[in-house]
Amino acid sequence: MNTFVSPRIADIENNDLRQQLQQIIDDKTKPLGALGRLESLGLQIGMIKGTTTPQIEQPQIRVFAADHGLTKHGTSAYPSAVTAQMVYNFLQGGAAINVLARQHNIELKVVDAGVATDFEQHSKLITQYKVRHGSRDALIEPAMTEAECLVALNNGMKVVENLAGNLLIIGEMGIGNTSAASLLLARLGNVAIADCIGRGTGLDDAGLQHKTHVLTQVLERHQTAQSPLDVLAALGGLEIAMMAGALIQAASERRILLIDGFIASSALLAAERLVPGVAQYAIFAHYSAEPGHVHLLKLLNAEPLLDMGMRLGEGSGAALAYPLLQSACAIINEMASFSDAGISGQNS
Amino acid sequence: MNTFVSPRIADIENNDLRQQLQQIIDDKTKPLGALGRLESLGLQIGMIKGTTTPQIEQPQIRVFAADHGLTKHGTSAYPSAVTAQMVYNFLQGGAAINVLARQHNIELKVVDAGVATDFEQHSKLITQYKVRHGSRDALIEPAMTEAECLVALNNGMKVVENLAGNLLIIGEMGIGNTSAASLLLARLGNVAIADCIGRGTGLDDAGLQHKTHVLTQVLERHQTAQSPLDVLAALGGLEIAMMAGALIQAASERRILLIDGFIASSALLAAERLVPGVAQYAIFAHYSAEPGHVHLLKLLNAEPLLDMGMRLGEGSGAALAYPLLQSACAIINEMASFSDAGISGQNS
Repeated sequence: MNTFVSPRIADIENNDLRQQLQQIIDDKTKPLGALGRLESLGLQIGMIKGTTTPQIEQPQIRVFAADHGLTKHGTSAYPSAVTAQMVYNFLQGGAAINVLARQHNIELKVVDAGVATDFEQHSKLITQYKVRHGSRDALIEPAMTEAECLVALNNGMKVVENLAGNLLIIGEMGIGNTSAASLLLARLGNVAIADCIGRGTGLDDAGLQHKTHVLTQVLERHQTAQSPLDVLAALGGLEIAMMAGALIQAASERRILLIDGFIASSALLAAERLVPGVAQYAIFAHYSAEPGHVHLLKLLNAEPLLDMGMRLGEGSGAALAYPLLQSACAIINEMASFSDAGISGQNS
Repeated sequence: MNTFVSPRIADIENNDLRQQLQQIIDDKTKPLGALGRLESLGLQIGMIKGTTTPQIEQPQIRVFAADHGLTKHGTSAYPSAVTAQMVYNFLQGGAAINVLARQHNIELKVVDAGVATDFEQHSKLITQYKVRHGSRDALIEPAMTEAECLVALNNGMKVVENLAGNLLIIGEMGIGNTSAASLLLARLGNVAIADCIGRGTGLDDAGLQHKTHVLTQVLERHQTAQSPLDVLAALGGLEIAMMAGALIQAASERRILLIDGFIASSALLAAERLVPGVAQYAIFAHYSAEPGHVHLLKLLNAEPLLDMGMRLGEGSGAALAYPLLQSACAIINEMASFSDAGISGQNS
């Protein structure tokens, strides 16, 4: 599969619906605007789903796992082997994202996008979309060939096609993937690389300096990569490319995209540059503590719901924020209106 | 009942337990500190409950309703009648707090602390602790006599005594109660009254100016009220005094106090001044959009979890934040440790 056929993304703007939703919210038994962000969140979900009675159905988390060629240059605090070890942890139900998914009854599956290790079959693991054993070393060649990147994008789309439910959280596991996200942000957003880089899973000062040095070289090596597809192939990662494909497909199906932190936002930026309009379907869960995230959020005009200083990935911030979306829908669907409840208006 | 007998509040600090909890959290399969505020929240709940396996059981919301004598001077955007109308709305299940309580399976009851109207019996309504029909007009006399204030405090304690569960949310409904909260903040916190006042349920500029004028006069009228009990009686409200009693009793029983917005925080400040130590049991749910809240939070050394621009009261912000506390406990109890999962540590 050597081409990327972009699906149609519907524009969510609909002035009549927006006014209807606002009227419904304003007539609820509370002072005007008193539920603040919860009101605008409900309106946003209504616009995404194209309805005045928005409901979240069968929410899904897909955690995309892959290894990164660049890690051999010491860009991460943890060894690459941890990617596969954490996949086992997901399958055993012991990771943070498992705990949060169970709490909120969100179905969780892991997608092997390109882990260096091969796994046995497991009911929670999707293996048929694996592209290769880790990305290439971006210091000497593109992280993916164009063909590999296209396969990753298309496979990401297939992960979502015909999926149950109407809300998608994409999480990720990949030692070294904050480097890929930083590189994508630097090139796609034209942001100075030093502003895109953080400590990832926990680099010390020397490690951070080394990471900056390596990533600067990678950007120089791939000066000519400028189109969204070329940038994603040269600088991205297998899981990030697959996540971008998943987001594109999900937006084409009018799913709610509940976006986690730094890596998920970098995948959304890539998806939006490949297929403008995808980001309309995004709700941003939280501000990551990874320093580059604020730049990504600015590029995506995003105002996240939570600010908990989290930087774990896996989709954990999105799963944590998920009940706020349920609350926003419930307020619209279940709260009484002033006329229903026979309550007096303001003093005139 | 003309005295206030303060129950004993246990000090939650316990260095051994703190270290044990921190060790448990640090050994979870995630980079050190990567779950940010969720980690410190779990630790805080563990300290409050005095255990390394904190669990929330049978959470309870009690919404305290009362009217305010000051409203006759036009200090609120809504007429006093709305207090009783909203009580009916709570009983019918149509208010925001009903929706959020149902979502999170939190038991909700309404306490008539001092509504001007009397209500028929209802399974969700507690009527036996009503002190009087609305507070007195604080512009001409204390809002409560000392005896009335003591009854309100003691009755608030009785509301909580022998209550199921280990987590309490106190909400409130009372047209005019942002005025009482502002007055308490001004006097107890020594904050300029203009900094304590906001638009409440929606005053316009002229209304805000008028409210400031009235509250300034009230503070002058009660210059001599300086002890916590005198301040609460002179400037508070029946629901706020009862909430303060409820918080004191709950803290004495080591319950988790999940604190809502401006009014609930003013009740906590009064409770803490009456019985130092109560605030140790508090977890702050959100930053209210009511401008005085930041001053209350500062006095209470509070860092709320959410910042959603809400200003509804009823306990709504606390109910919205509630699942974050469940998540924090679940992370401690359910997440695998590095040794359990056989995952490599950082590169050395």
